[in-house]
Amino acid sequence: MKDAAAPLAAPSPADSAALETGFVKGLLRQIRAHDATGVWDQKPDTALLAPYVLSREQRRQIPVIANPDAKVLWRLEQFYDAVALAISEEAGVIATPMIRLSHEGYGRVVVLAGMLVVLSRQLRDVHRFGFDSLTHLAAEGEGLVAAGVDAVKRFPDVATA
Amino acid sequence: MKDAAAPLAAPSPADSAALETGFVKGLLRQIRAHDATGVWDQKPDTALLAPYVLSREQRRQIPVIANPDAKVLWRLEQFYDAVALAISEEAGVIATPMIRLSHEGYGRVVVLAGMLVVLSRQLRDVHRFGFDSLTHLAAEGEGLVAAGVDAVKRFPDVATA
Repeated sequence: MKDAAAPLAAPSPADSAALETGFVKGLLRQIRAHDATGVWDQKPDTALLAPYVLSREQRRQIPVIANPDAKVLWRLEQFYDAVALAISEEAGVIATPMIRLSHEGYGRVVVLAGMLVVLSRQLRDVHRFGFDSLTHLAAEGEGLVAAGVDAVKRFPDVATA
Repeated sequence: MKDAAAPLAAPSPADSAALETGFVKGLLRQIRAHDATGVWDQKPDTALLAPYVLSREQRRQIPVIANPDAKVLWRLEQFYDAVALAISEEAGVIATPMIRLSHEGYGRVVVLAGMLVVLSRQLRDVHRFGFDSLTHLAAEGEGLVAAGVDAVKRFPDVATA
């Protein structure tokens, strides 16, 4: 909410480059698709992505006890939904994410296409899910998408089985 | 709890046959492994499995609103853990289950081995998870195991990738 009140600086050149990546564009489409009332139309992309960027210090201040915050879980889901969507588009398959978390913020995320596990990652400290910068967010997302697309290329018949 | 108080009849011939199936034996091993204090040592197998058996009428009486009961979720997890374990033993792979449920009792369960989705099922009305009889429980379990083993045979290199 404070993002809306604070004057927003123009994105830095690094952030601008990150915003131009296919992954971040997809993530923004994904996030904006949830804006049924149009109140986010006024919000610049950087404001919508701001909660994804946490400094090391900010992360450290978030306690990792009890259930992760519902908003963090929502951001985590949007992130992996965007990963699955980008894999679907690039590899021409139907890829869906599945996240399983314990109450302590540990867990596993997989992206499945047909009978293929195109991506599988352990999750930990989900309470602190975030990235050092938009550049880092873009690089992580693009890396996951590339790994998923490679997996589909390796076993194309399984991904469509 | 009422099982412990009520006098238990000897299992019917049909139940005895179900108790002899590999799947039900595995499920019982799985359930008994959680008995850290040994109080279930006195309990016959049929008593431990009794909560899995629900008549159509009993099922209908369970409301499907709000979150499914924690005990139902535990039984669901034990069931699919047993399925994954039996697939692992029969197919010689490491298969793990992953369950994703909405708060309304809808969801999906998959069993994964390596990069292979060996089993994928939609779940619904999880609140009412149960079987008409032990015979039905055994048949369902064995059917899922057989389907999983077939999937591994179809893509053995993916299951160990």
